[in-house]
Amino acid sequence: MLFGRRSAIVAAAAAALALNVSAQTFQRLGGCPTLGCIFPPDQADFLAGQYFDIRLEVHAPVNGSEATGRQPDPNFEFTIARANSSAQSAAQYFGLEEPRLERWNFTWFEDLFARDARRPSLVNVTAKAYRRVALYEPGEYTATLNYNNGSKTIATWTVRDIAEERKTKNIILFIGDGMTTNMITAARLIAHRSVNGKYKTRMMMDQFPVLGHQMTHSLDTFMTDSANSAMSLYTGHKSMVNCLGVYADSSRSPFDDPKVESIAEIFYRLYNGNIGIVSTALIADATPAALTAHTRDRNQYPAVVDSFLNGITNYSWTDWNGPDVLFGGGAEQFYRGGRTYMGRDYYEEFANAGYNIVLNKTSLLDTANDTRTLGIFSTSNMAKWLDRNVYTDNLRNQSNSPDGSRGDALDQPGLKEMTLKAIDILETRSEGKGFFLMSEAASIDKMMHALDYDRALGELLELDDTIKATVERLKELGTLNDTLILVTADHGHGFDVMGSVDTQYLNAQDTDREKRNAIGVYQNSGQSQYVIGNLTYSEGVHFPATWEPRYSLYEGVTANPDRIENYQVKQEGVREPAVNITARQDFYANPEDDNPPGILVNGTLPVDQAQGVHSLTDVPVFAMGPCQELFGGVYNNIDVFYGMAECLGLSRRTTPHEPKKH
Amino acid sequence: MLFGRRSAIVAAAAAALALNVSAQTFQRLGGCPTLGCIFPPDQADFLAGQYFDIRLEVHAPVNGSEATGRQPDPNFEFTIARANSSAQSAAQYFGLEEPRLERWNFTWFEDLFARDARRPSLVNVTAKAYRRVALYEPGEYTATLNYNNGSKTIATWTVRDIAEERKTKNIILFIGDGMTTNMITAARLIAHRSVNGKYKTRMMMDQFPVLGHQMTHSLDTFMTDSANSAMSLYTGHKSMVNCLGVYADSSRSPFDDPKVESIAEIFYRLYNGNIGIVSTALIADATPAALTAHTRDRNQYPAVVDSFLNGITNYSWTDWNGPDVLFGGGAEQFYRGGRTYMGRDYYEEFANAGYNIVLNKTSLLDTANDTRTLGIFSTSNMAKWLDRNVYTDNLRNQSNSPDGSRGDALDQPGLKEMTLKAIDILETRSEGKGFFLMSEAASIDKMMHALDYDRALGELLELDDTIKATVERLKELGTLNDTLILVTADHGHGFDVMGSVDTQYLNAQDTDREKRNAIGVYQNSGQSQYVIGNLTYSEGVHFPATWEPRYSLYEGVTANPDRIENYQVKQEGVREPAVNITARQDFYANPEDDNPPGILVNGTLPVDQAQGVHSLTDVPVFAMGPCQELFGGVYNNIDVFYGMAECLGLSRRTTPHEPKKH
Repeated sequence: MLFGRRSAIVAAAAAALALNVSAQTFQRLGGCPTLGCIFPPDQADFLAGQYFDIRLEVHAPVNGSEATGRQPDPNFEFTIARANSSAQSAAQYFGLEEPRLERWNFTWFEDLFARDARRPSLVNVTAKAYRRVALYEPGEYTATLNYNNGSKTIATWTVRDIAEERKTKNIILFIGDGMTTNMITAARLIAHRSVNGKYKTRMMMDQFPVLGHQMTHSLDTFMTDSANSAMSLYTGHKSMVNCLGVYADSSRSPFDDPKVESIAEIFYRLYNGNIGIVSTALIADATPAALTAHTRDRNQYPAVVDSFLNGITNYSWTDWNGPDVLFGGGAEQFYRGGRTYMGRDYYEEFANAGYNIVLNKTSLLDTANDTRTLGIFSTSNMAKWLDRNVYTDNLRNQSNSPDGSRGDALDQPGLKEMTLKAIDILETRSEGKGFFLMSEAASIDKMMHALDYDRALGELLELDDTIKATVERLKELGTLNDTLILVTADHGHGFDVMGSVDTQYLNAQDTDREKRNAIGVYQNSGQSQYVIGNLTYSEGVHFPATWEPRYSLYEGVTANPDRIENYQVKQEGVREPAVNITARQDFYANPEDDNPPGILVNGTLPVDQAQGVHSLTDVPVFAMGPCQELFGGVYNNIDVFYGMAECLGLSRRTTPHEPKKH
Repeated sequence: MLFGRRSAIVAAAAAALALNVSAQTFQRLGGCPTLGCIFPPDQADFLAGQYFDIRLEVHAPVNGSEATGRQPDPNFEFTIARANSSAQSAAQYFGLEEPRLERWNFTWFEDLFARDARRPSLVNVTAKAYRRVALYEPGEYTATLNYNNGSKTIATWTVRDIAEERKTKNIILFIGDGMTTNMITAARLIAHRSVNGKYKTRMMMDQFPVLGHQMTHSLDTFMTDSANSAMSLYTGHKSMVNCLGVYADSSRSPFDDPKVESIAEIFYRLYNGNIGIVSTALIADATPAALTAHTRDRNQYPAVVDSFLNGITNYSWTDWNGPDVLFGGGAEQFYRGGRTYMGRDYYEEFANAGYNIVLNKTSLLDTANDTRTLGIFSTSNMAKWLDRNVYTDNLRNQSNSPDGSRGDALDQPGLKEMTLKAIDILETRSEGKGFFLMSEAASIDKMMHALDYDRALGELLELDDTIKATVERLKELGTLNDTLILVTADHGHGFDVMGSVDTQYLNAQDTDREKRNAIGVYQNSGQSQYVIGNLTYSEGVHFPATWEPRYSLYEGVTANPDRIENYQVKQEGVREPAVNITARQDFYANPEDDNPPGILVNGTLPVDQAQGVHSLTDVPVFAMGPCQELFGGVYNNIDVFYGMAECLGLSRRTTPHEPKKH
C-alpha cells in the first residue's frame, strides 16, 4: 500500500502530548492527532494570495484504543479569525456557500502487532471541503474546528509578510534527486584531479557564492519521499509521503484531497509566466509532477500527464494552460496503447494544443525555439549517463522507444541537452519577460536506490556539467545576472565513501573475510585512480577517465537490502542488488551481482524492500544570482519556496477587486 | 603500524602521470611520487611570514618495481626562485648555513600481494633539512631539487596575499570531531520539538548566518584522520595521516619531520596572544595536540604534553610559553607514575610555570580567572554527556581519577563548563586584547567509531548547548561582536538516519529477518518520540526527554565491523560492537551487544578493524562574527586557517629587520 493512513504522534508546542503514543508506524491520519482534523493544519505557512483548499474531518473510531462509541459529528463548525479580529464562519469569511457534508469510513492498523493479527481499526468520518480560497493580509490566523459538542481543534496559520516587488527575471531550479553533500564530495573525487590535496579544477556547484542547508522531513513523518518534498519546495507547504500538491485526507478518492497552489501555477496566473519542466525520469514522476498535479497518490501517472496540459479540472482551481517545455521520459503515459489518461493519445493532445513533439536528441537539437515543445525520449526513466557515454551497449534491447514501437531509444539526450534547449525556448518565448525552469537529475536517486554508486555519481556529474553549461548559455544570452540559479535536492540517501578497494586483491581472495582485507582506510586509502588516463568520455575534465580502476571506492549506504558488494562498476547495466526468490515479497542478495565475486552482506531493511531507502540528512542549497542572500544558512525546505516566491514577486497582499489599503 | 610509508599516486596537473600505478594501499612516501622529495611539496600554500622547515630526500630503491641499481645522490642541489627572479640556493636565500647530509633507509610494501608474500622493498635515502625559515612576499615561488645528474623535482609554492590588518579581537573555534551535517540533522530530531513539520526551537549552530563546506582529504590519501585534518585547520598545510604540525618524512625519528607553524604559535609570537585549548578527549589527543605539537606520530602523547608547556625544543623553532587554558582528560600523561615525558610530574611542571591546577568540576568553577589554568579531569577520554547526565552509574568503577589514585572521576565537567571557564580566564587575562580558543567535542567521533549513535548525538547536543552558552557569555562580557565564532568538524563518519524502529516489536520477534520488519521507513517512520515527556535531563529543550522511546531511530554508518544492531541505547556504558575472539586481530560481533537481542550484521571493513572508520564527506562550517563572510561556500580545509589568520591579522608580508618596501 503506497498511501498509509496514520495517526500522528505530534509533540505539541506546549507540554500537551499526543493521545496515541503507540501509533507511529501507522497513523490514523497524518497531521491529525485528535479526532477533529483541519487541513492545512496547525503551523501551516502561506504565501499571501496563494490558492488553497480547506478540508475538515471529524473522526469517530469504532474500535481500537480510540473508540468513543459515538457517531461522527455532522454538525461541526469551522471559523477563521485574523489576528485580533473576531471569528467568522469560513463560508462567510471567504464568501462561499457552505459546502455539503461528506461521509465515509476507513480502516488502519494501530501497530505492527495489530497488522500481524489482522486486527484493523475502523473509523467513521464526517467531512467538508472549501475549494480555492486564499488569504491576503500577512499575519496570523486562527482556524477553529468545533465538534463533538465542545471539542475543539485549533490551527494557527501564518501568511508570510513578503513584499510584492519582483527581483529576478528568471529562476532555474536544479534538483539533484536524492543528492547529498557526501555524494558531491565523492563525485568531485572521481572526476576532478588534485595535486597534493589541492584540486586543479572545481565543480560548478562548488563555485556558487551562497550555501544553505534545507531540512527535508515531512509534516507527519521524519522521512520523506520525492513527492512530498517536491511539494514543499514548490508550494511552501509540507505534506505527507506520496502527496503531490495536496494534504492527504482520509477519503477514498486520491483526487479530492485539499490542494495548494504551486510556484508554476502562481507564476503563470500572475505573470502569464513561461514554465519549463525537465527531468531524466519518466515525466509523470514525483519531482516534475508536483509542479502541476494535485493528488495524494503520486502513482496516478496518467492523470499527472493530463494535469501538465490541462491543469486541475475536477474542482474549481487556478487556470493552467501547459508549460512551454516538457522534456523527459515516460512515453507510456503518452502513446495510444500505453497507460494514458482516459486512453487518449497525449502526443496528439499536446500537438493539438500547439506543441512541437520531439522524440529523440537529434530532433530536440533541431526543433524551433519559438514554439511550445514536448520532448519524450524513452519509456519509463531515461538512460543513465554511464550507459549513454561509456557502456553504450546497454542502450540496446531495452524496448523503450518513445513512439511505443518497442524498439530501442538509442538517440536519447542527456540532462544538459534538454536543459539548454529548454532555456533557448523559454528565453525566446518569454521575450525577455522571464521564466521558471525546473531541471531534475532524477537518477542520482534512482541509482542510489539500486546501490549503483557509479551510475549515481555519473548522474551527479552530469548535473554539474549541466549547471556549468547553463551558466555559459545564460552568459551568451546576456541574462545570467537576471537569473537566480538554485541547485538543491529533495532528500538524501545515507551514502558515503570510506576508503579504497584493491579490486585485484579482492578478486583474488577466496573468502569474504579475506576479501575484506582488500579495503584500504585512512593512510591506506590512497588517491583517486578514476582521474588517471585520458579523459576519453568527455569534452572536459568533469567525468572520470576510467570507471574501472584497480583501486576503486570503498563506498556504501546506511540502509540496505541483502546484497553482494564487489566495489566494481556494473558494466552490464543498472545494478539490481536484491531479488525476490520466494512467492512473497522476501528479498535476498542477487546472485547475478556476484561477478566478479564480492562480499555477501546481509541488510537491515525490512525484507520486502528490494533497494535502499531515503535518509534524513539536511541537503545543500547552492545559490547564485538575484536574491542569492535569501538561501544561506539552515532552514526548512518550504523556505526555498518562499525565497523563490519573494524573488519572483509572487506575493499578493491585497484581496483582488478591493481597493488597496494605505 | 600507525605510520605507513607510501608512494603517492599523484595525478599531475598536466597529462604527466605517476610512476607507480600499483602503489596505492601502501606508498613509498606520501607526497613524493618521484625519487626526489621536497617538503613542503608542490602546491603548498603559506601564510606570509609563517615559519616552516624544509625537508629534501633523494630515494634510491634497491629492489621492487622502482629499483635503479644506484646509490642515493649525496650531491643533490636545492634552489628557490620567487616569481620571475633567478633561482638561489636555499641556504643563500634564507641566509642559513648549508645543512649536513643525512642518510638512512626504510622498507615498504608495494601492495597487499607483496605484504602477504612478505616481500618488502628497500629504499636508501640521502636527505637534508632547513629549519625555521619563512617566506614573506606574497606570490609564487619555484622550489627545485636537482638530483641524480639531471633529474628534477619542482614544487610550486604560493604565499597568499593577505592583508596584515586585524579584524577580530577573539576567535573561538569549535570542532565537533567527526561531526557531519547528517548528525546535526539527527540530533535536531531527537532534541527539538516540532509541530506538523515546523520546529519550535532551533539549534544554535543552525542560527549562524554563514554556512560553508570544507573538504577534509589528506595530501596523499583521500581519507584523513584527526591529526592531519586538525593540522590543516591550524596551519594551512595539508599533510598525511597521523601527522601533527609536520610533513612526514621517511626517517626513523618521529620528531625530525619538517614542521609548519600553527595559528596558536603565530598568534602568540606576533601578539603575545592568549590561547585556550579545551577538549573532552585526553588532552594529548590529535585535535588539541595539533596546536603545539610537531611530530608525524600522533601517539607520542608524553611529548605532546611537554610541547603544550614548553613548545618544540629539539630544533630551532618559534618560542612558546604555554597556553592560558588547557582543559581535558588524559591524566596519565601528567601524574608521576603515569606515562609521562621523561618520567616527570606534569602537574608539578605546570604548577612551577605558574599554572593553577584543577582536577574536578567543583574546583574548575571555583578557580580564579586571572591565572593560567591546567584542568585535567580524568584519565584517558572524559565521560560522555549521556553517562554524566542520564546513566550516571556508568561513572563508577572506572578507575579514572585524574590524580592517579585509581579512584573514580565522578565530578567531571562537561564541554560547556570547561568552555565557559576558558572564556572567563582568557577574557580576564587578555585584558580585552583578544584571545584564541579551540574547544573540541571529541567524543562525537569516538562514539561514532563505537557505533554508539546515542552517545555520539548526546555529545553533539552538548556541543550545541555549549555554543549557545558561549554566545550568551560573550554577550554578558560585551565582546560578542568582537568574536569570530566558527563551528566545524575535521572529518566525517558515514552516518545517517533512515527511519524508525518499533523496538517493542523487534524485541518480540525470534529471527533476524522478522526483526527487520520492525523498521519503519518513509510514511512508516513516524515522528520523533525522543521529545515526548518531561525534559528531565536538561534546563532547556536541547536534549531528548527520553533515550528509550518505543520507536527509536533506524540509523547506522556506512563502514562497519561485524556487529549486532538492536537500535536501543546501551544503558550499561559505551558500546563495543566487535570483539577479538582469536589470537590474531580478527574481530567478530560482540555477543554482549545482543541485549535485547538484535540483528546480526556482517561488516565489510577489514577484519582487523574493531570499529567504524572516517568518511570522505565535506563537513559544514558555521560562522558568526567579524569576517564571517570569509567562510561561505565550498573550500578546502586549509582555507579555514587562512580565513582565521586573515581575521586575526597574522600575515607579515615584509621580512623582519628589513626596511618596508613601498
